[in-house]
Amino acid sequence: MREVAVIGIGITKFGELWDKSFRQLIAEAGSKAILDAGIEGKEIDEMYVGSMSSGRFVGQEHVGALVADAAGFSHMHIPSTRVEGACASGGLAVRQGYLSIASGMNDIVVVGGMEKMNDVGGNDATATLATAADQEWEAFFGTTFPALYAMIATRHMHEYGTTKEQLAQVAVKNHANGAKNPYAQYRREITLELAMNATTVAYPLGLLDCSPVTDGAASLILCAADKAKKYTDKAIKIIGSGQGSDSLALHGRRDICTLDATVHAAKTAYKQAGITSKDIDFAEVHDCFTIAEICAIEDLGFVKKGEGGKAIDNKITTLDGSLPVNTSGGLKSKGHPVGATGVAQMVEVTQQLRGEAEARQLKDAKIGLAHNVGGSGATCVIHIMEAM
Amino acid sequence: MREVAVIGIGITKFGELWDKSFRQLIAEAGSKAILDAGIEGKEIDEMYVGSMSSGRFVGQEHVGALVADAAGFSHMHIPSTRVEGACASGGLAVRQGYLSIASGMNDIVVVGGMEKMNDVGGNDATATLATAADQEWEAFFGTTFPALYAMIATRHMHEYGTTKEQLAQVAVKNHANGAKNPYAQYRREITLELAMNATTVAYPLGLLDCSPVTDGAASLILCAADKAKKYTDKAIKIIGSGQGSDSLALHGRRDICTLDATVHAAKTAYKQAGITSKDIDFAEVHDCFTIAEICAIEDLGFVKKGEGGKAIDNKITTLDGSLPVNTSGGLKSKGHPVGATGVAQMVEVTQQLRGEAEARQLKDAKIGLAHNVGGSGATCVIHIMEAM
Repeated sequence: MREVAVIGIGITKFGELWDKSFRQLIAEAGSKAILDAGIEGKEIDEMYVGSMSSGRFVGQEHVGALVADAAGFSHMHIPSTRVEGACASGGLAVRQGYLSIASGMNDIVVVGGMEKMNDVGGNDATATLATAADQEWEAFFGTTFPALYAMIATRHMHEYGTTKEQLAQVAVKNHANGAKNPYAQYRREITLELAMNATTVAYPLGLLDCSPVTDGAASLILCAADKAKKYTDKAIKIIGSGQGSDSLALHGRRDICTLDATVHAAKTAYKQAGITSKDIDFAEVHDCFTIAEICAIEDLGFVKKGEGGKAIDNKITTLDGSLPVNTSGGLKSKGHPVGATGVAQMVEVTQQLRGEAEARQLKDAKIGLAHNVGGSGATCVIHIMEAM
Repeated sequence: MREVAVIGIGITKFGELWDKSFRQLIAEAGSKAILDAGIEGKEIDEMYVGSMSSGRFVGQEHVGALVADAAGFSHMHIPSTRVEGACASGGLAVRQGYLSIASGMNDIVVVGGMEKMNDVGGNDATATLATAADQEWEAFFGTTFPALYAMIATRHMHEYGTTKEQLAQVAVKNHANGAKNPYAQYRREITLELAMNATTVAYPLGLLDCSPVTDGAASLILCAADKAKKYTDKAIKIIGSGQGSDSLALHGRRDICTLDATVHAAKTAYKQAGITSKDIDFAEVHDCFTIAEICAIEDLGFVKKGEGGKAIDNKITTLDGSLPVNTSGGLKSKGHPVGATGVAQMVEVTQQLRGEAEARQLKDAKIGLAHNVGGSGATCVIHIMEAM
């Protein structure tokens, strides 16, 4: 398999973007990435885009073609394909772009992810997000995602003594990081007191334990690593790609506190990269809810199972900790336009490895990981990146 | 790139399947394919599934995970990804499975396609299908797919003298073939008179010029060609894979009578296979409307532009013609569960090349082509297959 590198990145502001359409968002992110890579457009061999539910959010399926069209490439007739895996759609799009270059079929591929979630209104957004759960066994009976993750949280508290304060500290940390990110939806710090006392959504998760409903898009330009130098001297190599799945419904899992899809994807990605979890310097993880970040750092092997809460207490995952997590602000503060998230995570990892993360820049970060989850953990995709 | 072969096929009955759920359909097609390939299941490295709009048809996104789950593979945590490109979703899923083996990452991949369209009722199905068109420039103003293809048909009649009788003859031929296919939705022949006098849907297209609303699923087991002999002595090689895109809206095209996405995909696939259109012995083409089959045989290079109608008059594309087209009955008679269609086409091509097509078996068929289109032609994916 050929090696693959990121040679360009682009991202829109995340937030409630009432003045921008679905196609404008992806065109903006894609154009930025193309400019950043220093390519003209005619070099592009293929495109992959992640969107979870454009059919329900904006009444538009067939978004692979839409994106090629919006980017002004329809006259080139290059292949463009949409990939979907709920909130992991963006990461899956990256993986397909990666494979298409690794296979030798393509040299340069545009990858995008986007979602426009606010246009449908709050209640419909929740119902549409619930289509990422098992419709027949979960959503039909009224289960929503805050409820599913609340069950994971209460079980984690019961098994390992994790506290509501530890959950709240995840939100406090991620808002502190997001305040330093110009693309974040919520650029403000929050106090522990505010997070602890926020309205309960589904116990123990309060409003500030939940990622928001967000519009936004992100894009990467992928290139065969041996051709990357032609375009840029700041290429970032993808050294591992792993994906895993699990039962769609939470009740089908071996252990609801462990996302086996994450464990499987991480094992595959570490093996391909020839490293262990100890070699990771920083990570963007899928904190759709605060408990999800605690499970993630355990399932990725950064700390032992059950010690995720303690790691938060010990400030291991802060910007100046030994393993910074969600330097971008994470889904919690940066926002979570579901199809864009997996791509946006890799934009952040690239910025950190390039030394372009400004106020949130880490020192001596060499290897970063992006962890993108679909639903309550039925899909997980992980990419590991390193400066060339 | 490594060579890839089909070692197993599975398909459900196509039709109004009120007694079977979405997950039952794909589990049935997948199980049949696994049994046909003679594998146990544990050999599977990855899964790809095509579905156009499961989120709107059955309220379920995240169908990659659903399919792995329904097939009983969730405990194996193997990657499973949904791919969408409107009515080309199935063909795109095959292409991603193909690339993942060609890359060297995987040896055995399950590919599936499915749609359950009847549960939403007729009007909603039409509205959901319209999400494959440009929502802002076409669907918003009330355009439906029969209307879009009717515009293509009237222009083709104007430019090339194509007649309503030639369109009707496509339907007559495909129903004659479908009558011989045990999986077809409509297993009955129709007369030219019936087709000519059917209720007009959008002039010149009558009811019998249109493919129906269908439930169904199909599946393929793909394998690295050099390992195929371990499992079967009737492997069929994929010798070419091509994909193309075009403007999402019909009005953005260079020429609405030519699907440039088809022309581009065909050129790529022929080049990879090292053949020309003259080497194709038979084809399954995307006859969502009768005019689409006429355009397809032109755009694939089987006849000159504008001579598709004449080819029908000359019986070139019948079962005993020089280039049989849609031996399965095509979308018209076999049915068109949109996400399943691209996979089902390759099930038919495999059956023909294996000599297992029973009453519709062709003599001396060596190379077959499957042509799958999304929307009014914004996406096209083509695979060329040959017995090993």
